[in-house]
Amino acid sequence: MGVSGVGKTTIGTLLSERLSIPYFDGDAFHPKENIEKMTSGHPLNDNDRLGWLKSLNTLAKEQQEIKGCIIGCSALKEKYRDLLKTNIENDVKWIFLTGSYELIVNRLESRKGHYMPPSLLQSQLDSLEIPVDAITINIEKPPEEIVEMLTAEILKKSDFGLIGLGVMGKSLSRNLVAKGFDISVYNRHVPGTEENIARDFKNEFEELKEILAFDDLKSFIDSLQKPRKIMLMVNAGKAVDAVIDDLLPFLSENDIIIDGGNSHYKDTARREAFLAEKTVFFIGAGISGGEEGALTGPSIMPGGEEKAYKMIKPFLETIAAKDKKGKPCCTYIGSSGSGHFTKMIHNGIEYAEMQLLTEIYQIFKSTGKNPDEIAKMLLQRENVMDSYLLEITIEILKKKENGEWLINKILDKAENKGTGNWTTIAAAELGIPNTMIASSLFARYISSFKEERLKLNPLFSHESNSLQLNSGEILKAYQLARIINHAQGFKLLNEASKAYNWQLNLSEIARIWTNGCIIRSTLMEELVNVLEKNENLFYDKNILESVKELKPALSETVPECIKNSIPIPCLSEAINYLNAITLSESPANLIQAQRDYFGAHTYQRTDDESGEFHHTHWKKANL
Amino acid sequence: MGVSGVGKTTIGTLLSERLSIPYFDGDAFHPKENIEKMTSGHPLNDNDRLGWLKSLNTLAKEQQEIKGCIIGCSALKEKYRDLLKTNIENDVKWIFLTGSYELIVNRLESRKGHYMPPSLLQSQLDSLEIPVDAITINIEKPPEEIVEMLTAEILKKSDFGLIGLGVMGKSLSRNLVAKGFDISVYNRHVPGTEENIARDFKNEFEELKEILAFDDLKSFIDSLQKPRKIMLMVNAGKAVDAVIDDLLPFLSENDIIIDGGNSHYKDTARREAFLAEKTVFFIGAGISGGEEGALTGPSIMPGGEEKAYKMIKPFLETIAAKDKKGKPCCTYIGSSGSGHFTKMIHNGIEYAEMQLLTEIYQIFKSTGKNPDEIAKMLLQRENVMDSYLLEITIEILKKKENGEWLINKILDKAENKGTGNWTTIAAAELGIPNTMIASSLFARYISSFKEERLKLNPLFSHESNSLQLNSGEILKAYQLARIINHAQGFKLLNEASKAYNWQLNLSEIARIWTNGCIIRSTLMEELVNVLEKNENLFYDKNILESVKELKPALSETVPECIKNSIPIPCLSEAINYLNAITLSESPANLIQAQRDYFGAHTYQRTDDESGEFHHTHWKKANL
Repeated sequence: MGVSGVGKTTIGTLLSERLSIPYFDGDAFHPKENIEKMTSGHPLNDNDRLGWLKSLNTLAKEQQEIKGCIIGCSALKEKYRDLLKTNIENDVKWIFLTGSYELIVNRLESRKGHYMPPSLLQSQLDSLEIPVDAITINIEKPPEEIVEMLTAEILKKSDFGLIGLGVMGKSLSRNLVAKGFDISVYNRHVPGTEENIARDFKNEFEELKEILAFDDLKSFIDSLQKPRKIMLMVNAGKAVDAVIDDLLPFLSENDIIIDGGNSHYKDTARREAFLAEKTVFFIGAGISGGEEGALTGPSIMPGGEEKAYKMIKPFLETIAAKDKKGKPCCTYIGSSGSGHFTKMIHNGIEYAEMQLLTEIYQIFKSTGKNPDEIAKMLLQRENVMDSYLLEITIEILKKKENGEWLINKILDKAENKGTGNWTTIAAAELGIPNTMIASSLFARYISSFKEERLKLNPLFSHESNSLQLNSGEILKAYQLARIINHAQGFKLLNEASKAYNWQLNLSEIARIWTNGCIIRSTLMEELVNVLEKNENLFYDKNILESVKELKPALSETVPECIKNSIPIPCLSEAINYLNAITLSESPANLIQAQRDYFGAHTYQRTDDESGEFHHTHWKKANL
Repeated sequence: MGVSGVGKTTIGTLLSERLSIPYFDGDAFHPKENIEKMTSGHPLNDNDRLGWLKSLNTLAKEQQEIKGCIIGCSALKEKYRDLLKTNIENDVKWIFLTGSYELIVNRLESRKGHYMPPSLLQSQLDSLEIPVDAITINIEKPPEEIVEMLTAEILKKSDFGLIGLGVMGKSLSRNLVAKGFDISVYNRHVPGTEENIARDFKNEFEELKEILAFDDLKSFIDSLQKPRKIMLMVNAGKAVDAVIDDLLPFLSENDIIIDGGNSHYKDTARREAFLAEKTVFFIGAGISGGEEGALTGPSIMPGGEEKAYKMIKPFLETIAAKDKKGKPCCTYIGSSGSGHFTKMIHNGIEYAEMQLLTEIYQIFKSTGKNPDEIAKMLLQRENVMDSYLLEITIEILKKKENGEWLINKILDKAENKGTGNWTTIAAAELGIPNTMIASSLFARYISSFKEERLKLNPLFSHESNSLQLNSGEILKAYQLARIINHAQGFKLLNEASKAYNWQLNLSEIARIWTNGCIIRSTLMEELVNVLEKNENLFYDKNILESVKELKPALSETVPECIKNSIPIPCLSEAINYLNAITLSESPANLIQAQRDYFGAHTYQRTDDESGEFHHTHWKKANL
């Protein structure tokens, strides 16, 4: 691509010989009307070009089926290029030929038999939208040298690079290779602990024999096609900044760093701004699905500049899981840290989903049921409320080791990796009541104080033989609590979207959470439609009906558990939230009065619509 | 004070004439044995000095009863000075005379009739601990000039300065003046909004006629005795940094800035470190008590360098509230941000205490009781569980305006000023389950979504006519929830103390919270003793008995409310916390299994005491 006179035919023909694939001059495909228009000195308009570009796209697709080809075409605007690469996005490589105005004019004027008058050059230059995702070549160099450079770039270099070969990095690399991408991988060399990680990984799997594996960063970067696409799969926190610092000296304009780890969204926003100053793009992409998801198709939540996303879209959307309609579980989320924020909310919802299952497990366990029996109970309603977490919970409960249930051998101190904690903090900061995520986080914290629990336990009675609940009721309660958990999670997403002006598409986010990720479920599938029409789950008629139908079960289950000393903080927060958010008159007038009494904080009145603030001298002998 | 030869007698005598108060030469009070020892060339040891210092302290106290005096005494060590000022800490001013070694030697050698040989000078200089809280004078200047400077410093300058005359700043100023301190006050000049604030404040109250009032910062600072003690009562956040920046150019070594606002403890730690580099002390002092407390005696929680605290102790402990034994409700909390952290926890406990009262109010209201009837209910058990917040709640409920209850006119959207939010965040960051504070914060947030509540309300039924609880039971539930709230609050304090190595004295903190502050209560008085013996409330025998006695009431109240759709999140968290923290086997083993299943996060086993981490391939066809 490039304006007339840059030498598309010269370079295209030479490259065609070198790569043994055909060269097509795009201009030869112009219909007669276009050629006449140009020869008469009138520039083409976009309408003139439409059919022509489509026929070039058809040509490219046909050739791609055989062994590929080179097409010379000015392709000045992004929308032309979008047309040209339709349905072959993953396979197209752009070569952008460019040079000084004088040089191009000279070449044009010395041409014979070309129907484009040099006077049109300026209009072409005005139309040109410089591509960020192309191999850019200055035409001052001799054609042979240019072709040499291009051959090296295209044949010997990888499309995509990945840094950090932990569990997730390895799985994503294998996923990329399985989808046909040429990749380079890098893992640092740490004597004694991390030696030859990349080389060993390459040798471990037959299908990886074509990848380029490095423990030298410069060689790794040199092995990537420009603009480079480099995904970091390193530990969130300081490691990300350290790797960015190491990379920076070797990067060029428009290179893209993708952080695929669980970074904090504020760090991501900071890094993006820092790298933008250095003309390097930064995409913070939350990835969910664990080891298996990373290998076979995770859910991916990328945030950052949209034009940078477009360049990595073929890679991310190809390796992502697919929803029931076959669309990738990866979509552009929004600017700045919105991708990692969305991943954080995903994990917050996950925390509460896990805690709810834990509480249901505890309720059944308290009635004396063994893990197999509990698994059987959970299977009862699987068709109604299927979810990945429910499925694995059932598998976990059934798992035996030497004839004994493995679950009974696992220490009851839950760990947390920060994202539940971050969601709670974000909710507190943004003023949103995410009570279920918070109580799930705190439930894990309580579990970690095992010494204290053991010391206090003998002093209290914990019999729960009188539990008067049937399993149907318990599972209905669980189902409603899940709906409320999702309502809270999406509410936080929505309010953050407003606060940060991210314009998140909640329905799309629900859609990419229907497969690949840890919180995929039939409920999530339902929410794709619900959130298309309502930003608030409870405003949906069907959801509302479910809530009303299931409420008696939750309103019975929580009391029974409390009477029997079974801790069910997350179920309790669910019903309390529902009761509070549906209350027209909250008792918070008392809090406002108290604050005004002791701190002169003032209050608003129901009988003063101006919204003015009032202060009362509550005490008679005040001051 | 100062070593022999600095001219204590010369300056003391001149100053005595100028101020018309007697001068006493401390050396004249030495017993015979001390004089003999010194004349024979032997320095005195601390034992020799004890009786002598005590007699000088007695002299000072006697003279203080009349009209004060000047005493010349070397007073080289801090502990001598501590003895000398015993019980008159607020009234003593130190003048430290100092000069070069050569100058002092010359003066000593030219002396007649003095029994101290110059050879002892070096031992005195070695012993000298330079005071940070003294007016320091270089003796090179002529005595008349020195006396002139001292007169100006002592007679015309204030002991204490206060910046920021909002509600709290004004009340604290009046409190300081009422206790006899000479103060300067400053408020910035903002055309149109803050004009002549300081001058108008001075003119507003007869008792303030002696204070110095400024809107010029340099004049304000010049009006203070060195080392200056300046308390900031400005809005937490950027304003504090701005005022510090404005002050810095005018400050001298050992000046002390006290931040009496609700600053975040991490900001306080940062500011202290920044100012330490500039040899200025910074004390972050949490102050609770609202407007009235600030005026008549607040609870004060100062953190920072202990030697800086000692200098401001007379002021803070004098203006603070007094506990039942007459001790000030102010104590040195610990280093760095610990004072503001402690204040933050105070406010967190306050959030939950307010929310509990709100829930009790809501329960009674749901049964159709009017505010007067609810107030009567709350009065029933006042003697058992009295607290400031309960008292003001009763007064609020009874308050009428034009014959109607004022509480019914107040808008039900609770505001929050950040500290409840910060406590929740601190708990999340430190890994401590402060569930009640979090749910109180979130209850305020829910109240603020009034539009959503109004939209959802008609869709749900909220009748609660079938509530089967008597008021005694409800109040018992409230009482237990308060105990659990305090257990959680002190647990967070204790764990933060360990994490930051603050060595907080929990019992002392409870003691200074028994009066002056918003969470003062009979329960808090009980906790002073409890926390002396136990870092965990539940380990105390009496508390444990109360908990067991009250538990049935809470276990009945919460279920009844949930069945009747009354939101009681904080009461629910109380009972759930109690049930969870007393559980020997938590169900968190399931969470660990789930995390290992999808994320290979590994788990510990109950049958492996090594604590090693294990991983299971849960799925048969795993990867």
